[in-house]
Amino acid sequence: MVKIQSIQERALQSRDVIELLRDKWRIPILHVLTPGHLRANQLQGALPKVSPKVLTQTLRGLERDGLISRDVRNTVPAHVEYGLTPMGNSIIPLLRNLCRWAEDNSKKRDEARRHFDSAQRISEGARRKA
Amino acid sequence: MVKIQSIQERALQSRDVIELLRDKWRIPILHVLTPGHLRANQLQGALPKVSPKVLTQTLRGLERDGLISRDVRNTVPAHVEYGLTPMGNSIIPLLRNLCRWAEDNSKKRDEARRHFDSAQRISEGARRKA
Repeated sequence: MVKIQSIQERALQSRDVIELLRDKWRIPILHVLTPGHLRANQLQGALPKVSPKVLTQTLRGLERDGLISRDVRNTVPAHVEYGLTPMGNSIIPLLRNLCRWAEDNSKKRDEARRHFDSAQRISEGARRKA
Repeated sequence: MVKIQSIQERALQSRDVIELLRDKWRIPILHVLTPGHLRANQLQGALPKVSPKVLTQTLRGLERDGLISRDVRNTVPAHVEYGLTPMGNSIIPLLRNLCRWAEDNSKKRDEARRHFDSAQRISEGARRKA
């Protein structure tokens, strides 16, 4: 029997990670910034499904959390670029491991889903007949 | 200049990871199941903030994705336990690394937030005066 208190501690530990990755567009933005700095319109081009409003909000959130920096060059017109901070860079290998894990396990996951869905259909069919 | 196509590929790679971690309660549930199998009421006790309905939905989602198994023993009343599958177990070290990263970087993140918020206040104050 596992102690409930240690379980709650484990749950609390994971809260920060969830907060970090909560937004749908945070991981894609960190990924596309990995090779180097990009301007907002380049980010928008790389992630055409994100609306300009959500892109701006997500960039602000990442900047606020210290994961990316917003560099403004005083040219006319002003040249704004986004890039990873050292802290943002340090999470990339962990995200890359997660991506590799997801890739390696995608077949198993699809199999598990088919198995689960067919078991559901069978038990629903049995219920309907009863 | 980074090629837009390779950027889009990077963004696509991260989609599976986001899907996996999307639900707020997935990581906490995987964490609390790490030491061993638990019954639904033990999970509920460990995660008092999750509603019974959401707990059930999240458990079903994790089972469908092959990360946890639902083991039913034919006793009266039926004894149902949840536990990690080998696939679920294999993601635990990656999640643990992410938790450790979040813990190690929490001070830097809080500093970055304070810095961002005070810069916001200053620029808002300047705008109001102008």
